[in-house]
Amino acid sequence: MLIKDLGEFELIERFRRQIKPRASVVIGSGDDCAVLKFDKTRYQLFTCDMIVEGVDFSLSDKPYLIGRKAIAISLSDIASCLGSPTHCLVSIGLPKDTPLKFVNCLFRGMRDICEEFKVDIVGGDLSASRKIVIDVSMLGLVRKEKLCLRSGARTGDLIFVTGELGGSIFGKHLKFTPRLREARFLKEHFKVNAMIDVSDGLAQDLGHILKSSRVGAVLYEELIPLSRKARDLSDALASGEDFELLFTMPVKEAKRLVKRNIINFKPIGEIMGRKYGFKLIYNSGKIEDISLRGFTHF
Amino acid sequence: MLIKDLGEFELIERFRRQIKPRASVVIGSGDDCAVLKFDKTRYQLFTCDMIVEGVDFSLSDKPYLIGRKAIAISLSDIASCLGSPTHCLVSIGLPKDTPLKFVNCLFRGMRDICEEFKVDIVGGDLSASRKIVIDVSMLGLVRKEKLCLRSGARTGDLIFVTGELGGSIFGKHLKFTPRLREARFLKEHFKVNAMIDVSDGLAQDLGHILKSSRVGAVLYEELIPLSRKARDLSDALASGEDFELLFTMPVKEAKRLVKRNIINFKPIGEIMGRKYGFKLIYNSGKIEDISLRGFTHF
Repeated sequence: MLIKDLGEFELIERFRRQIKPRASVVIGSGDDCAVLKFDKTRYQLFTCDMIVEGVDFSLSDKPYLIGRKAIAISLSDIASCLGSPTHCLVSIGLPKDTPLKFVNCLFRGMRDICEEFKVDIVGGDLSASRKIVIDVSMLGLVRKEKLCLRSGARTGDLIFVTGELGGSIFGKHLKFTPRLREARFLKEHFKVNAMIDVSDGLAQDLGHILKSSRVGAVLYEELIPLSRKARDLSDALASGEDFELLFTMPVKEAKRLVKRNIINFKPIGEIMGRKYGFKLIYNSGKIEDISLRGFTHF
Repeated sequence: MLIKDLGEFELIERFRRQIKPRASVVIGSGDDCAVLKFDKTRYQLFTCDMIVEGVDFSLSDKPYLIGRKAIAISLSDIASCLGSPTHCLVSIGLPKDTPLKFVNCLFRGMRDICEEFKVDIVGGDLSASRKIVIDVSMLGLVRKEKLCLRSGARTGDLIFVTGELGGSIFGKHLKFTPRLREARFLKEHFKVNAMIDVSDGLAQDLGHILKSSRVGAVLYEELIPLSRKARDLSDALASGEDFELLFTMPVKEAKRLVKRNIINFKPIGEIMGRKYGFKLIYNSGKIEDISLRGFTHF
């Protein structure tokens, strides 16, 4: 049996089942970040993301943007737990004949976005590799009462998304802004029940929330904010790497949020009971079961 | 200009110069681990290590040992700061047609060594990749007064090494035991001035201590514990990945350590003034300047 026959998520699930974390681990594998005990008032967040040449970027992409993306993905993970990033390490595998100029730009892209979001690069590892590969591991902090996971969605919650979806494969995946400012705004003023960042497509990632929270959901085509670059709704549902925040909150909070209308938060659907499943209502009135869409690596 | 013209260490040095860490960073890039503020009595250690197929292991190696090695390298980094490991994340890039059995063994190798040294795997990332690549990022803790860096060597210190050197390329690099027990023994009973793990060869790694501490050193051929598998002294000096601890301590402490003679700690030389340089005295009486030997990735 090959791993592509099993699929990415089943493979991860098999690993998870074998691990029994100790008492210092609040949440282990299975959310956007691992959550560790830190001090009386805060948890520490710990996350990593690997990007690989030919899969997550190509050599024709600007090295500055490749470096930026490597860091931004982890920033997005920290944002989706409503945390603040603090430190990161960068492991880079590079072919020996990589031009120094390429590496300089790559590194400048990393450094600039770290400066922007006040994260310290505190070290890393450099290795020879046939294809370029970058793995960033990042630490963050979150106040205990603000920690937001995939598992907190409740029936009746409204579902929101930041920004626009479906522009990923047309360049956004290299230029997206990790939604740390939006996360800070939300945690300061609202009660968010569940959150994830859209890295595998709306359908897959909302699916993760539904599975963790043991609930169902309905989405409305007319409400989903499509990027002008998206060809159709499929690009939003199934193409990964929009890196927008996808979250749910009680109706009362949702009403307050819609009223504030300060940043680009759009309601796109509602959390339903588990038995309802996961459905999309098209403008035409057609109802589709969308539980099986999204990007997977294998 | 290509990165191989610049060399691994100069490239890392160029990155380091561009980074100005914030107040929460005690030691940033440049030691075996980054050292971060944690609580009143302890620092947090943060390190990452990437291994790549065809460079750090080959497909003909046992997947169990590949997984074990990926974790053991980071454990060795934590040991060399005299810390205790706590949590780790594992990023894995895998070809789609990797047999599930291979991945299961890989993962079992990781899990078993984590169990042995009481480290929690708290998550990770899985990505498609043409060649197998594994990056492990690890957290640890160390009591402030016990923290040991490369920069603490003093003129007159004796230089010690654990175990035997030079067996790396003949299999040891996949089977070495990270020296956490030896590190614990040392920190409980002795004052260690400087420490590093031997990952690029004795000459290179002692060179890192000398550079950070601004001192020189003399090594004696007759004292260097050669692995039975090593062909000659060159394998100990210049072949990487022995993952033994290399450390320096004041003469008084050194005498106590030699007297205890409990574990395999061998004195191999002495820290000298900076002007002395870095020399090896052969059994024949010949003196060689060895400052330029060791493994580099580019």
